[in-house]
Amino acid sequence: MHVLVIGAAGMVGRKLVARIARDGAIGGKPIRRLSLVDVIEPEAPDHISSSTVAADLSAPGEAAKMVASRPDLIFHLAAIVSGEAEAEFDKGYRINLDGTRYLFEAIRQQGLKQPYNPRVVFTSSIAVFGAPFPDAINDEFFTTPLTSYGTQKAIGELLLADYSRRGFFDGVGIRLPTICIRPGKPNKAASGFFSSILREPLVGQPAVLPVPDTVRHWHASPRAAVAFLVHAATLDTAPMGARRNLTMPGLAATVAEQIEALRRVAGDKAVALIRREPDETIGKIVAGWPRQFDAGRAESLGFKAEKSFDEIIRVHVEDELGGKIA
Amino acid sequence: MHVLVIGAAGMVGRKLVARIARDGAIGGKPIRRLSLVDVIEPEAPDHISSSTVAADLSAPGEAAKMVASRPDLIFHLAAIVSGEAEAEFDKGYRINLDGTRYLFEAIRQQGLKQPYNPRVVFTSSIAVFGAPFPDAINDEFFTTPLTSYGTQKAIGELLLADYSRRGFFDGVGIRLPTICIRPGKPNKAASGFFSSILREPLVGQPAVLPVPDTVRHWHASPRAAVAFLVHAATLDTAPMGARRNLTMPGLAATVAEQIEALRRVAGDKAVALIRREPDETIGKIVAGWPRQFDAGRAESLGFKAEKSFDEIIRVHVEDELGGKIA
Repeated sequence: MHVLVIGAAGMVGRKLVARIARDGAIGGKPIRRLSLVDVIEPEAPDHISSSTVAADLSAPGEAAKMVASRPDLIFHLAAIVSGEAEAEFDKGYRINLDGTRYLFEAIRQQGLKQPYNPRVVFTSSIAVFGAPFPDAINDEFFTTPLTSYGTQKAIGELLLADYSRRGFFDGVGIRLPTICIRPGKPNKAASGFFSSILREPLVGQPAVLPVPDTVRHWHASPRAAVAFLVHAATLDTAPMGARRNLTMPGLAATVAEQIEALRRVAGDKAVALIRREPDETIGKIVAGWPRQFDAGRAESLGFKAEKSFDEIIRVHVEDELGGKIA
Repeated sequence: MHVLVIGAAGMVGRKLVARIARDGAIGGKPIRRLSLVDVIEPEAPDHISSSTVAADLSAPGEAAKMVASRPDLIFHLAAIVSGEAEAEFDKGYRINLDGTRYLFEAIRQQGLKQPYNPRVVFTSSIAVFGAPFPDAINDEFFTTPLTSYGTQKAIGELLLADYSRRGFFDGVGIRLPTICIRPGKPNKAASGFFSSILREPLVGQPAVLPVPDTVRHWHASPRAAVAFLVHAATLDTAPMGARRNLTMPGLAATVAEQIEALRRVAGDKAVALIRREPDETIGKIVAGWPRQFDAGRAESLGFKAEKSFDEIIRVHVEDELGGKIA
């Protein structure tokens, strides 16, 4: 199987590449070729030979080059993130909408030359939903995004479904929960604290909590996100019918529940490193975010997430800290 | 007020233009300028001076020309219809998606030169929804179109909402029910029979009914559709928040109910002109269509449709037949 990963240098992309390189196969099919693309040249993984290319999906002609070798499986993870797409309107639409459409269209054009029907796995986002929300958002709730990023992802979902319905490719769109614990440094993203209040104390560093303990949100680990992608790459799409986009399972938890899990895994001294510094701006942003989903459809199709925050923390300790807590 | 109608030569466009020309005002504001555009040059209406232009919204630069004079109110009715968008994939995306995006972007570019915030009324369609459906589709049901046309309209809705949220214009998207009784000749559209089983007998002509009497569908008259557009042009958008797209009210009726209304309005001899000729292909297409909506949100915002099929037939007799039944 020839696998193409677009957006291979991002956090989820790198973890996906590491996983499939280690497995050497997807869904039992050996990977005979692995092509990695991102705007900066992705790192080549261990265990497997791969080609790495720096290319911009939104530049004319680039999408056609990426699919010219007719990969069997295409992961499309490339995107401008939420904050940047909101700050830079043209750039967000160019990369998140035009880039996605160029890719889908390049695949269709390959199929017009000779039959071609690759699996396309597209990472969407719960940002396709916009407040006001019901307590738990079900699988038929409408998409009324409140960001340009969410709008672009919702449009990508519609295109994915239409191109799949028309038989141009076999697409699966997955809406990832907020990834927690996100590895790396603290950043300025409004959602950053969900990870940092766990990540920093686990290595003996202080962290700031800008919202009340009662804030509830929807989480999955990076390992779970990679498992979603791999499952989406191989599942039987027939039971999905024309509804090709799925809210992934996750864990709904309050900040208080996150902190209690931290206490169980790393003790009071870790919890003591969290400093409460209410930030009204972040509080307002987060108040507009979804708190919980009913992801029954994805679960019935075999997608699985963590069942407790203890588990999410343990995944981080295993995957990022070599099993050690400070 | 300067009003621009794009798609002014279509059935709904012509009726809209005739209505606003007759009124001479919209929402109490006199129309001082009326610009009409379509791919074929629209007819100039009576009662009012207007400019008429033949132009293709999807051709580069045309959208910018249309909004260069900064109209206060823009009706965007231009579209390739469902069957054609399905048969001609590129053409449908070019006109229904690119054309719409060019228009929205041309308005934004005007606003970057100096402040500009016109009202934009966009005609969407119940084709944004795809089966399987609940008995009545509510205002939070998701959009999973089963046609490229429906996909393009759903994308137009998302763009309209995002451009409105960002303050580039003040948009309202309205999802029209099936228009009944559609004036004119019988056509090959799968939905054609809903109109022709009434329209033809009202003038003493035979009509073919290809589906069972039990088929239920969602209707509004052309006059109601025009009233939706006019109301959308002047309503206060503040209560809509970021949710700028509305399913219009309509009348859910079975074919049997349509026929009984025809009997009440035009007698048994009219009904006797309907010939039952089951057509499996049309039956299958129609089985995938929505049957009923709960359009409470639009109703609460002041949109009104007919309450009985007798009324829908009377509107046709008044507006198309000069009040006379054969």
